[in-house]
Amino acid sequence: MNFKAIIEEIYQKIKVVEDKGELASYIPELAYVDSENFGIHISTLEQGNFGIGNYTDKFSIQSISKVLSLALAYRMLGEKIWKRLGVEPSGTPFNSLVQLEVDNGIPRNPFINAGAIVISDILISHLENPKDDFLAFVRSLSNNSELNYSHEVAASEKEIGFRNVALCNFIKSFGNIENDPTEVLDFYFDLCSLEMNCQELSEAFLFFANNGRRTVDNLSILTKSQAKRINALMQTCGFYDESGEFAFKVGLPGKSGVGGGIIAVHPNQYTIAVWSPKLNKKGNSYKGMRFLEDFTTKSELSIF
Amino acid sequence: MNFKAIIEEIYQKIKVVEDKGELASYIPELAYVDSENFGIHISTLEQGNFGIGNYTDKFSIQSISKVLSLALAYRMLGEKIWKRLGVEPSGTPFNSLVQLEVDNGIPRNPFINAGAIVISDILISHLENPKDDFLAFVRSLSNNSELNYSHEVAASEKEIGFRNVALCNFIKSFGNIENDPTEVLDFYFDLCSLEMNCQELSEAFLFFANNGRRTVDNLSILTKSQAKRINALMQTCGFYDESGEFAFKVGLPGKSGVGGGIIAVHPNQYTIAVWSPKLNKKGNSYKGMRFLEDFTTKSELSIF
Amino acid sequence: MNFKAIIEEIYQKIKVVEDKGELASYIPELAYVDSENFGIHISTLEQGNFGIGNYTDKFSIQSISKVLSLALAYRMLGEKIWKRLGVEPSGTPFNSLVQLEVDNGIPRNPFINAGAIVISDILISHLENPKDDFLAFVRSLSNNSELNYSHEVAASEKEIGFRNVALCNFIKSFGNIENDPTEVLDFYFDLCSLEMNCQELSEAFLFFANNGRRTVDNLSILTKSQAKRINALMQTCGFYDESGEFAFKVGLPGKSGVGGGIIAVHPNQYTIAVWSPKLNKKGNSYKGMRFLEDFTTKSELSIF
Amino acid sequence: MNFKAIIEEIYQKIKVVEDKGELASYIPELAYVDSENFGIHISTLEQGNFGIGNYTDKFSIQSISKVLSLALAYRMLGEKIWKRLGVEPSGTPFNSLVQLEVDNGIPRNPFINAGAIVISDILISHLENPKDDFLAFVRSLSNNSELNYSHEVAASEKEIGFRNVALCNFIKSFGNIENDPTEVLDFYFDLCSLEMNCQELSEAFLFFANNGRRTVDNLSILTKSQAKRINALMQTCGFYDESGEFAFKVGLPGKSGVGGGIIAVHPNQYTIAVWSPKLNKKGNSYKGMRFLEDFTTKSELSIF
Repeated sequence: MNFKAIIEEIYQKIKVVEDKGELASYIPELAYVDSENFGIHISTLEQGNFGIGNYTDKFSIQSISKVLSLALAYRMLGEKIWKRLGVEPSGTPFNSLVQLEVDNGIPRNPFINAGAIVISDILISHLENPKDDFLAFVRSLSNNSELNYSHEVAASEKEIGFRNVALCNFIKSFGNIENDPTEVLDFYFDLCSLEMNCQELSEAFLFFANNGRRTVDNLSILTKSQAKRINALMQTCGFYDESGEFAFKVGLPGKSGVGGGIIAVHPNQYTIAVWSPKLNKKGNSYKGMRFLEDFTTKSELSIF
Repeated sequence: MNFKAIIEEIYQKIKVVEDKGELASYIPELAYVDSENFGIHISTLEQGNFGIGNYTDKFSIQSISKVLSLALAYRMLGEKIWKRLGVEPSGTPFNSLVQLEVDNGIPRNPFINAGAIVISDILISHLENPKDDFLAFVRSLSNNSELNYSHEVAASEKEIGFRNVALCNFIKSFGNIENDPTEVLDFYFDLCSLEMNCQELSEAFLFFANNGRRTVDNLSILTKSQAKRINALMQTCGFYDESGEFAFKVGLPGKSGVGGGIIAVHPNQYTIAVWSPKLNKKGNSYKGMRFLEDFTTKSELSIF
Repeated sequence: MNFKAIIEEIYQKIKVVEDKGELASYIPELAYVDSENFGIHISTLEQGNFGIGNYTDKFSIQSISKVLSLALAYRMLGEKIWKRLGVEPSGTPFNSLVQLEVDNGIPRNPFINAGAIVISDILISHLENPKDDFLAFVRSLSNNSELNYSHEVAASEKEIGFRNVALCNFIKSFGNIENDPTEVLDFYFDLCSLEMNCQELSEAFLFFANNGRRTVDNLSILTKSQAKRINALMQTCGFYDESGEFAFKVGLPGKSGVGGGIIAVHPNQYTIAVWSPKLNKKGNSYKGMRFLEDFTTKSELSIF
Repeated sequence: MNFKAIIEEIYQKIKVVEDKGELASYIPELAYVDSENFGIHISTLEQGNFGIGNYTDKFSIQSISKVLSLALAYRMLGEKIWKRLGVEPSGTPFNSLVQLEVDNGIPRNPFINAGAIVISDILISHLENPKDDFLAFVRSLSNNSELNYSHEVAASEKEIGFRNVALCNFIKSFGNIENDPTEVLDFYFDLCSLEMNCQELSEAFLFFANNGRRTVDNLSILTKSQAKRINALMQTCGFYDESGEFAFKVGLPGKSGVGGGIIAVHPNQYTIAVWSPKLNKKGNSYKGMRFLEDFTTKSELSIF
């Protein structure tokens, strides 16, 4: 059975399953999304691409952007970024401050909010025009020059983002933020507000499955080692305190966002993006998780 | 370059590197081991086997046994074991009690002590002769009917194993241990005292790389899905609070023990066992970690 | 209004109040107590004594014994006991292990279980016949040579005291228990099982209100400074994580037990013991807390 | 021996003791203070007043202001303030965020930073001109219409007060701050910057020793019960994670500040203010603690 057939079959099955998730409530703007949306897109190295459902509708990628900002910082600065954050799963929710207090302001990994805020700070220190430059980077990855931030979503999150303000200032109090917290958060909220559809997402992430090289022109975005390392990080830390569960049930590196998107990477084979807005209790797309579990089971392909 | 050449080259290099680790001190018996020991053995599905250094000398596999006891419990009882323990990285040291208090006696995963103690309790409840039956299981995996527990090491650990007594009674106080804590710990300490050499270890673990099937006779030890899931667990939780680092730098599922052994699994390809007794600060073999990092780098093969 | 009149008035009022507490369930034997019991006894330095209700019925004093065992250890060894435990409120429940992990096995204060277990260990190391000698000490304080441990309650607690076994072994793993944990716990459970009535309890504690001197013969049990210091400890740590509330609402040093007893001390004036078996959510006697709050309000006498 | 003689004797002794403390470093402005300063002032209800050393030199009272802002909020709103914060010792440092995460944004007590920030928020919501009104309140207590905030100290703390920005926004994220965090912190930093000398401080606090009544005119600032309750809070929570130690060694309700000031209250007798800028490891004045311990020992007067 090929990918297309498998995806179609599971899509039809999961589409009608009762959605036990809930729309993300903490960013007001995200609650306006139609919760019936359900889209999937796979980009493969050798078997072509395929999408189904709402795979061309844009959504707020939220935390998925953390992988892209990490990739840009890693590309620019190499291993020295790890002086400022770790590579270990946190064992705590995405916005916890407890771990930071124990570890003196060094975030456990780049995919919890604290870590992504530190990456934002690094990018601000090293990019001429952080917002434009990051956008250019993502546009180049996804072959789409129209990609953009959502000012509504960013503004909505800024308005109620007190927990992130707390995180950023807390890290700053330990000396691990160089720039003004307000500026760092302004950039961070913009990153989270990036809007992409499943097709663009799986395209943009395909270089992670291709040893760091963009498929269209074989341009090296990251070294092979760097790409593998970010894959490893997605595997161990990509789903907050459900990362172990995702590795256990799906068996692929991946990253989720509270907008209901999930990207998963099968090294040397494909990337697959799923979008369904309602979230399970751990903050990951309910149907997205279900879909991917069935997908790796049916395709009998996981990295393990 | 083939595996043999790569292993030989790295072995010679790492052998002479200054060993910055320390012998495990908390089990008196383990401190008597010659810290110069350094052995490696690879078992492959298609390219034969190869060993170098002290690969036929037995050592105390300690926490590596946690994978084997989990395999036996999983084989016997299937998914229902997960009612009693989780599959998430803990973000804390191997013997922490903090997490248990937060999670009401449900260990975060089977590879921290608390989880392995719960698995021991499950095995006692379901095996006629727990110690003999487990030994028979491991012997059948490693094709070696001489494999045995070390009574000296088990006795040595029992004598000073107050932290594990605390863990077991703490879990019992939450109702998550069925049997008498003394009996559970007696079994648990025996499991940890199992002695194997690198060759036996890589042989015994080879079914994890072979979709759950023993290579000698294709007998199914675990289902394909179960084997993959344990591989995933080794990836996310196999090295205590250095699990992320191991995924990041080595990129293979694996498990370490304070006896200085490490086993790593490359699904569909090979298993490799390394032994060097001195441990880094996180309790994992200093040279073993170094060797495996170089090995996946040189061989350009990791699961990511 | 004198003490007698105030006590009578509040007793009548609280007696008929709905008891929103619950009987302690974790020690089976304690659940057999008649929950209607309600007794009070005051012992004063200058205004005589007075009891009402079930003040001559014995009950299990449980954690109240922690003050008496501390007094004996402090009397024998002086300030050096504080090398092994602290004097700070814990901010956590009475049987938490989290704090111990953070503080490397040094209990935060002598009135949480961990601290009382360390005191038990100290007494075992320094008394010829720990159980007999401690009993003799309490008998001499309360002028009652019939006082005794309850073997049923001690046995009942031993049977299910896994959390305390965990605590003791956990502390031992840090090196802060000298004796065999089984022996320490055997003594500890006996201490907790001591049975006294309100009259005996207020008599036994009267030396804390009298600068350390037994009132019958002016014998110095503790130095003035030691007595004050234990009073201070009762104030800051006597009611687990409701200690602040008790200081705030009642304003006297005191100590409670899960048997439903509470002792409070007004330095230079009196001691008062209250007993009502049903406990509030923090594990302190529901009616006992209510009574004492009304008592210091009506009498307009607190230490603040 | 009377207070004056005792104070003189101890002052001479402690003055020459080696000061093992360190100047507060985290507010730059505070590091400019002459660390040799050492002043004491006692205000009594019946034995007159007495000062020695630098008792008329103003210093930054810092956290001591938390008692005064609590008093004003309690006076205005009564018991309902306790819906928004607790009365329990925290068992953690003054600026910890861990406890807030566990308790969903309800600070453990009003004397840790988190609690004082909530009190500031309450005052902003209920005062017409918060800064002026609070200043008027403190001036009326200390009989000194010149008392004022230090704009230098407030500005200095604002500049580096990232941890407090984190705390305030963290609490806001739980919904327990009503006003704009920037406004709340601006007020909070001003409160901390209040400058008083030992004489003014002991005068201002005298109503706590006088059942809530100002001594000059018997005006009721707080009810008797309220005054007692704040005394109880100072006893259990006034010295961060050294509160138990202070109760144990000094035996009086009190409050310290990182400016090196300590106020202690002996209900129905006196208040005493001590100032010496160098702090011990817990953030309390090294010589101030030493002085007060000797003072209650020599005077043989504590509340216990």
